[in-house]
Amino acid sequence: MTMPNWLVQRAFLTPDRTALTFQEQRWTFAQLLKETHQMVNKLHTAGLKEGDACGLLASNRPETVFAIFALQQLGVAAVMLNSRLTSEEIKWQLEDAGAYYFLYDESAAQKARTVSGVRSSSMSELHETAGADIKEEYFPEGTCSIMYTSGTTGRPKGVIQTYANHYASATASAFNLGLHHDDAWLCAVPVFHISGYSILMKSVLYGMEVHLVEKFDAERVNQALKSGDVTMISVVTAMLSTMLHALDGSYHPRLRSVLLGGGPAPVSMLEACKEKGIPVFQTYGMTETCSQIVTLAPEDALRKIGSAGKPLFPCAVKIEGEEEGEILVSGPNVTKGYLNRLDANKAAFDGKWFRTGDIGRLDEEGFLYVLDRRSDLIISGGENIYPAEIESVLTSHPSIREAGVVGVPDSRWGRVPAAFYVSEADLSSEELSRFCQEKLARFKVPVHFIKMDVLPRNASSKLLRRKLADRWENRNEY
Amino acid sequence: MTMPNWLVQRAFLTPDRTALTFQEQRWTFAQLLKETHQMVNKLHTAGLKEGDACGLLASNRPETVFAIFALQQLGVAAVMLNSRLTSEEIKWQLEDAGAYYFLYDESAAQKARTVSGVRSSSMSELHETAGADIKEEYFPEGTCSIMYTSGTTGRPKGVIQTYANHYASATASAFNLGLHHDDAWLCAVPVFHISGYSILMKSVLYGMEVHLVEKFDAERVNQALKSGDVTMISVVTAMLSTMLHALDGSYHPRLRSVLLGGGPAPVSMLEACKEKGIPVFQTYGMTETCSQIVTLAPEDALRKIGSAGKPLFPCAVKIEGEEEGEILVSGPNVTKGYLNRLDANKAAFDGKWFRTGDIGRLDEEGFLYVLDRRSDLIISGGENIYPAEIESVLTSHPSIREAGVVGVPDSRWGRVPAAFYVSEADLSSEELSRFCQEKLARFKVPVHFIKMDVLPRNASSKLLRRKLADRWENRNEY
Repeated sequence: MTMPNWLVQRAFLTPDRTALTFQEQRWTFAQLLKETHQMVNKLHTAGLKEGDACGLLASNRPETVFAIFALQQLGVAAVMLNSRLTSEEIKWQLEDAGAYYFLYDESAAQKARTVSGVRSSSMSELHETAGADIKEEYFPEGTCSIMYTSGTTGRPKGVIQTYANHYASATASAFNLGLHHDDAWLCAVPVFHISGYSILMKSVLYGMEVHLVEKFDAERVNQALKSGDVTMISVVTAMLSTMLHALDGSYHPRLRSVLLGGGPAPVSMLEACKEKGIPVFQTYGMTETCSQIVTLAPEDALRKIGSAGKPLFPCAVKIEGEEEGEILVSGPNVTKGYLNRLDANKAAFDGKWFRTGDIGRLDEEGFLYVLDRRSDLIISGGENIYPAEIESVLTSHPSIREAGVVGVPDSRWGRVPAAFYVSEADLSSEELSRFCQEKLARFKVPVHFIKMDVLPRNASSKLLRRKLADRWENRNEY
Repeated sequence: MTMPNWLVQRAFLTPDRTALTFQEQRWTFAQLLKETHQMVNKLHTAGLKEGDACGLLASNRPETVFAIFALQQLGVAAVMLNSRLTSEEIKWQLEDAGAYYFLYDESAAQKARTVSGVRSSSMSELHETAGADIKEEYFPEGTCSIMYTSGTTGRPKGVIQTYANHYASATASAFNLGLHHDDAWLCAVPVFHISGYSILMKSVLYGMEVHLVEKFDAERVNQALKSGDVTMISVVTAMLSTMLHALDGSYHPRLRSVLLGGGPAPVSMLEACKEKGIPVFQTYGMTETCSQIVTLAPEDALRKIGSAGKPLFPCAVKIEGEEEGEILVSGPNVTKGYLNRLDANKAAFDGKWFRTGDIGRLDEEGFLYVLDRRSDLIISGGENIYPAEIESVLTSHPSIREAGVVGVPDSRWGRVPAAFYVSEADLSSEELSRFCQEKLARFKVPVHFIKMDVLPRNASSKLLRRKLADRWENRNEY
């Protein structure tokens, strides 16, 4: 079973519909295909061929969209790199994914040029060579994109996202949110995240306009939502919070869905949205489910505030154990696994079920309440941060014996990492912060550093992060 | 890969949405599931089990909907029988499909009771027994329904329609027509045809209301379309023609799609619809493609009158030969084959392509124009009639030596069959009509009988039906 090349097919079916808008520019699907073909010619110069993987480090700009589709034209898997990663982190991910090439845009050029060990170029530097072999068909089980996600232990893992996964995700979302002829989706979330990447996939599958925004700016996004130019938007809690704060008046009635992901939302925010008539759809999803897998349906939005909703059709969710327990999900949008991680895959899959690591409960009507993201996960401004990764950086410091990291409340980002460490030396927070900045993306660098005599551990010496969180809450008592 | 039981999942996700309305009655999805479970208990009494096939001869009534979903609950393939078939035709199809059971409703009871050789019962006679094994999951490649379609030669063939086929069809249709929260689809086409059956599948997949109509009545359908209660309707040319004729005023603006299938539509009708602001979407599809596969998109409806449009995403269409030729289609909604017909399947499939037998051309923009349904096919009031089937009945008459059947124009039905025959006896049209009525569904019985000295044949003795059609056109000259 194959499918026609999605972009080619879309440009054939509805050539004149708007595919993409960015600032004052606009591309129809026919024009998007043309731009993509030019990018294909650049990738051809770079020597990329079907079956390769290619790193992509780029911001939310049209060229990035062209590059994403160009990689699909060639059957090359896109390794979508978070723009906040350090050179070291990038290098590691490129190597892990076996990337043949590393492509970046001007905004990332400075950092990208310090990444060694893989052939690379900025998009603008590459000249075009004709003759690339454009795929007539997509193979549903082929790898479309790879996105790295950190785990509770060890190095980040590359999540394999197939064409079938993206197709299933777009379908399931349409069955839930509906699909209108005049839909336009504002994309202010990064396209290197599944939240943004999935909007591009929906665009080509639905024949829908994407209104691309380079950098999230609450005022400008509010303006777009007030204008009636867009009908859908994806946000995380921190974005919606600043948007609400900056909002004067109300949004245009054409705005029919504000898809809110990236961790539980405060009830106060949801109530504020309800008051202002903002159609918020809380959702639960992750890189491994290729975007949403559980969403609160329109008819339940007000009745079930705080819930992530019910699974998208035809996905399923269950809880391990009696009442509260690990959330397991299944569906055609769920990844087929992590790249080259036999052990992680063994641990993550149980037949058709994927273990999210998150904790939740289902109410009597089957609505999901996410109680805790993977015990240790810190969600900060929509970004996932794993303590283990920061802890391993901290313990690599010559004077630090042990370290434990937890998320603590922050008015702007929701949560930020706080580091507890044991050391015989006198280390300043500034010094530790600088040390971490060299090795970690900025958003992962702990905001607080707390020195301890000993870290709380259980009988088997396992770090008790919950106790560190308690310590933080009661810090004024010390 | 499996999927959760669609109906159970839908009743879980949106229990309180309207699933079905019929006359003054209304069922939510939760109620539809309950009614379906009662029907499951009846089928359990009948002894039906997973893997069986069951004939279903029933009209567009709620019980039929419950029975269709009940068969799915058990994993039993539904052999959907055309209510116009004769007892002999029904018996043949049941035997060919290896049906374990034959279920019918009161409206079909009289005819059904003359069908011998298979266990059978009317739905109302069966009592309920608990304990049936309801499927937790649907297997996408499992057979959901079987619908018989005649070919240019020989007996009808059972088209296998899988769950995956129905899912793909509903998805492709949503990507094209869109999907609104308040959609309601009027089903006045028979649920034993794919046109009606596919509406039921969309209902459960989309969570959408079906407004079921037992017998097509232009006045009543017009009333429904004027009321704003429905947003979508499927029609064939003959239906739309009488609707237009009976229409006083205009339809409600909520009506957003009149899906017009079943053969090419007269341009005059399309123009009349354009004048009245009726959103007609011409489509091309067949039992083998599980409903539409080519549809004219909104933006092209007026510009390309007479075209069936472009393929649904992600289907594909091509023409064999240079300009005009056989239409080949592919896509996940295309049947995996005819039941137990190795030769027919060999002839029908060419890799991923399915040979429709219809003739068409693509214009420079890729719009499909269907020039001729399978050379010999007669489409009469939306029903497919194959000359070969009627010819074989005629030649079974002791006094008829040879026979040839073609479609001739008819103001009410579009086309009707006309029979040309060679006989040494003197046979009246009434006598021949009666003879055919015993063996053929009413709509297949020729309306005209013309005696000939000899039938036009080519050098290889192949009947030249085209010459018979010419003969009919010029009949006044004789």
